[in-house]
Amino acid sequence: MQKNTLTFIAISLLLGSAAIAQAPSQEKAQMKPEMTESWEPEVKVTTPGANSSAPSDAIVLFDGKNLDQWASTNDPQTPAQWTVANGVFTVKKGTGNIQTKESFLDYQLHIEWRIPEKITGTGQGRGNSGLFLASIGKGDAGYELQIVDSYNNRTYANGQAGSIYKQTRPLINAMRKPGEWNVYDVIFTAPRFKEDGSLFSPARVTVLHNGVLIQNNTELRGPTQYIGLAEYKTAHGKSPIKLQDHGDPSEPISFRNIWIRPL
Amino acid sequence: MQKNTLTFIAISLLLGSAAIAQAPSQEKAQMKPEMTESWEPEVKVTTPGANSSAPSDAIVLFDGKNLDQWASTNDPQTPAQWTVANGVFTVKKGTGNIQTKESFLDYQLHIEWRIPEKITGTGQGRGNSGLFLASIGKGDAGYELQIVDSYNNRTYANGQAGSIYKQTRPLINAMRKPGEWNVYDVIFTAPRFKEDGSLFSPARVTVLHNGVLIQNNTELRGPTQYIGLAEYKTAHGKSPIKLQDHGDPSEPISFRNIWIRPL
Amino acid sequence: MQKNTLTFIAISLLLGSAAIAQAPSQEKAQMKPEMTESWEPEVKVTTPGANSSAPSDAIVLFDGKNLDQWASTNDPQTPAQWTVANGVFTVKKGTGNIQTKESFLDYQLHIEWRIPEKITGTGQGRGNSGLFLASIGKGDAGYELQIVDSYNNRTYANGQAGSIYKQTRPLINAMRKPGEWNVYDVIFTAPRFKEDGSLFSPARVTVLHNGVLIQNNTELRGPTQYIGLAEYKTAHGKSPIKLQDHGDPSEPISFRNIWIRPL
Amino acid sequence: MQKNTLTFIAISLLLGSAAIAQAPSQEKAQMKPEMTESWEPEVKVTTPGANSSAPSDAIVLFDGKNLDQWASTNDPQTPAQWTVANGVFTVKKGTGNIQTKESFLDYQLHIEWRIPEKITGTGQGRGNSGLFLASIGKGDAGYELQIVDSYNNRTYANGQAGSIYKQTRPLINAMRKPGEWNVYDVIFTAPRFKEDGSLFSPARVTVLHNGVLIQNNTELRGPTQYIGLAEYKTAHGKSPIKLQDHGDPSEPISFRNIWIRPL
Repeated sequence: MQKNTLTFIAISLLLGSAAIAQAPSQEKAQMKPEMTESWEPEVKVTTPGANSSAPSDAIVLFDGKNLDQWASTNDPQTPAQWTVANGVFTVKKGTGNIQTKESFLDYQLHIEWRIPEKITGTGQGRGNSGLFLASIGKGDAGYELQIVDSYNNRTYANGQAGSIYKQTRPLINAMRKPGEWNVYDVIFTAPRFKEDGSLFSPARVTVLHNGVLIQNNTELRGPTQYIGLAEYKTAHGKSPIKLQDHGDPSEPISFRNIWIRPL
Repeated sequence: MQKNTLTFIAISLLLGSAAIAQAPSQEKAQMKPEMTESWEPEVKVTTPGANSSAPSDAIVLFDGKNLDQWASTNDPQTPAQWTVANGVFTVKKGTGNIQTKESFLDYQLHIEWRIPEKITGTGQGRGNSGLFLASIGKGDAGYELQIVDSYNNRTYANGQAGSIYKQTRPLINAMRKPGEWNVYDVIFTAPRFKEDGSLFSPARVTVLHNGVLIQNNTELRGPTQYIGLAEYKTAHGKSPIKLQDHGDPSEPISFRNIWIRPL
Repeated sequence: MQKNTLTFIAISLLLGSAAIAQAPSQEKAQMKPEMTESWEPEVKVTTPGANSSAPSDAIVLFDGKNLDQWASTNDPQTPAQWTVANGVFTVKKGTGNIQTKESFLDYQLHIEWRIPEKITGTGQGRGNSGLFLASIGKGDAGYELQIVDSYNNRTYANGQAGSIYKQTRPLINAMRKPGEWNVYDVIFTAPRFKEDGSLFSPARVTVLHNGVLIQNNTELRGPTQYIGLAEYKTAHGKSPIKLQDHGDPSEPISFRNIWIRPL
Repeated sequence: MQKNTLTFIAISLLLGSAAIAQAPSQEKAQMKPEMTESWEPEVKVTTPGANSSAPSDAIVLFDGKNLDQWASTNDPQTPAQWTVANGVFTVKKGTGNIQTKESFLDYQLHIEWRIPEKITGTGQGRGNSGLFLASIGKGDAGYELQIVDSYNNRTYANGQAGSIYKQTRPLINAMRKPGEWNVYDVIFTAPRFKEDGSLFSPARVTVLHNGVLIQNNTELRGPTQYIGLAEYKTAHGKSPIKLQDHGDPSEPISFRNIWIRPL
């Protein structure tokens, strides 16, 4: 224990043993309300947006105008090739995944996406894309929050909209109809690694789908594996966020109103 | 290990040591995509609400009409005495706290609240109320998520809007102006206790304030203490949710659009 | 916040605004050492054992004399059939698993086990048994901490001594030679389930093998699966602890000095 | 989801819808035992010590001969001044705390300590020292695991032997008599911080006292505070381990057999 206890003990001895005996019972009585107030530093202020628009401290990743915040995953030095029109952008089949130019660690992300009204196909072949919470390499390397049409379209539970793909099913299916906009509000905590590259703490994610909780601080087992078991093998830090050009023949899906707040 | 490994070992011996040697490297190759699909049980469906209204699987605690879901905390057998008008309800000073008739454990809660446009007072004396995530007794016993006017009104950080009162400050101040509606979206995990009444796992809470993350799976140290240190002392299970009639002389605050989804 | 703040505020107003301004900076200065002392209730006392023998508050599961604390897993109404001699007990091949008569939830367990000096076989076929941290059914149902000869006997890492079988490899291989006694000191936290049977919190385990840390609060993914992926499917509470009669043709292993402290 | 699902879907279509329908139910049947084996990399080997002596992969911090691994906390460039005799070292009152020359992050530590047989004093004034799990500055800055005589010597519970001083009481009092050797086996996980210096994850500690569990993955609230509330204020990485020269007038305590394994 700390040394100045001794002063207290010495004083207690001077005051007689009654002082020691009373200490425990008087503990609460002796405290004052202001002793558990924490004043500094002052909490910073943000101005919240109206109707899900970005708060003042967010980085806007897409505001309806252009893909300036995004690059091609195949070659991050080149611009994203997807189509921007009418305030939304749409997957351009065959141009590959796109990812943010900036990298992030822990964050809150808001993103809206829409399955085309005239979607066709079934199961995983119906409006498939994906939000990689952290891209850790080319192609589909990373942690995928599934995007697919799950409105009256059954697939495996850990592969439907809102699943951590091939890992954890959503708590509930809160999907809107094709043609309507879906919203993901995501709170992501990146994994941390030790100096030797082994895992210190796994990634975690909380997701609200159209305002409904579908992932509650879910622990990720590792980067998404289409075949086999997910496992953390490679240490990484900040990473881009990535959207998938899935390549199936169904109509391409669209995105809008994307903003992020590093935590 | 499990006994039928032996069969595998036996077969391996028949096949020669090459079979054993190859096992590790062939592991991934041998798996098929469908082996990590999880189909059953089917994920249940909810219909999300529009504009923050209740999804189809929520319990509506206030829909603008009456306080039928609420009782007086002083005497839970009697109705809540607060005022309902124009689709909102308002604290009626001096009638005491009110709480839900139903009890909850883990849940997602949506609640909207408004500081009066003509609010007066400063610090804790300006538009003070509180949302008790679990009421564990009369008066103010429970876990309080602070409600107070924090728009240009400084107080101690762990006592401002969005704080776990006297415990944990919000990550950021996302308060709207007096007269505008604030929203709390809350994900609460109740504490769990052992058979002997000691704590097994603390309560946890995630809060979005006007869509901005202010508490991220925050661990609660115990029921709120105005004086002294919070500590888990009494085991409890499902509990009502409670709103505070604070008693300070400022204008009373109002609430609307409250719904909950047990998790 | 709590209502009596108001008194403080009122007093502060009387004293003038200086009182409020000073509150934050004086916080620490105002506290006294005894305010963070916690006296009640008094911590209970146990008398530690010498040389890894049971402390006074432990339940002795085997003290060298008989298997009175154990039953057959196949029929828990019948006695355990394994052999007791020279202060140790030894697997009796073909009689099946044995388990404690008493059930446990969270606990600290000490157990010693010995691979026969003249062990034969390789891989999983060399001195194989298992400690089921919680038995949740007949046969090998439960959470298995692997027991096998891992001294110069390679097998898959998540199947060697000290692994959570088919889940998590030990941090290091701290195995003693065949013929010498090995020790497991285990701290087990049972899984908890919700009312609807779904998982609330996974099982966790810390293991020292011969005094060396090999599992550090490791999260278990579900009951052990020899084939396929572990997953929590069935809620359970207190459970017996179980030892495995593996059935491979190698010499049977022995146990001694087993005690447990419910936590 | 991953793109090559499409191949599977295409094949499924060729095979007819029966293939899809069967996929879920056949999942487990299709897996093979070796698919959940993890072989690489091979788990490293350590040779465990006999009778609590250091395993082969440990760093020996004191082997009975000298304090070469220790320095003065007041001036880490100067040698530790405590007394070495008869295979143990003893606090030399007035020379100040001592600390390891090497710094550590996460680790397993074994340390033995002895209250003098002829100890005098009461409460905190009876055989007081302390093990700082991480020293984060001069004097007593750091995370203190309390060392004091708690054999028939009551003090506040969060200040007795085995407590996280002024934070968390031990689960049980496993103290040996003055004159006998006590053992702490400690598993420490250092706190992690974000780039901006704020806390990412708190420190955690598991402690066995004479083989009895007294701290079970306990979360530390911050560096030890003799007065006031513990709180993480300053980011730090690897730190020395520190022993306290407490300064009270009771007989000085002794230490022996100290080793550490970085994790």
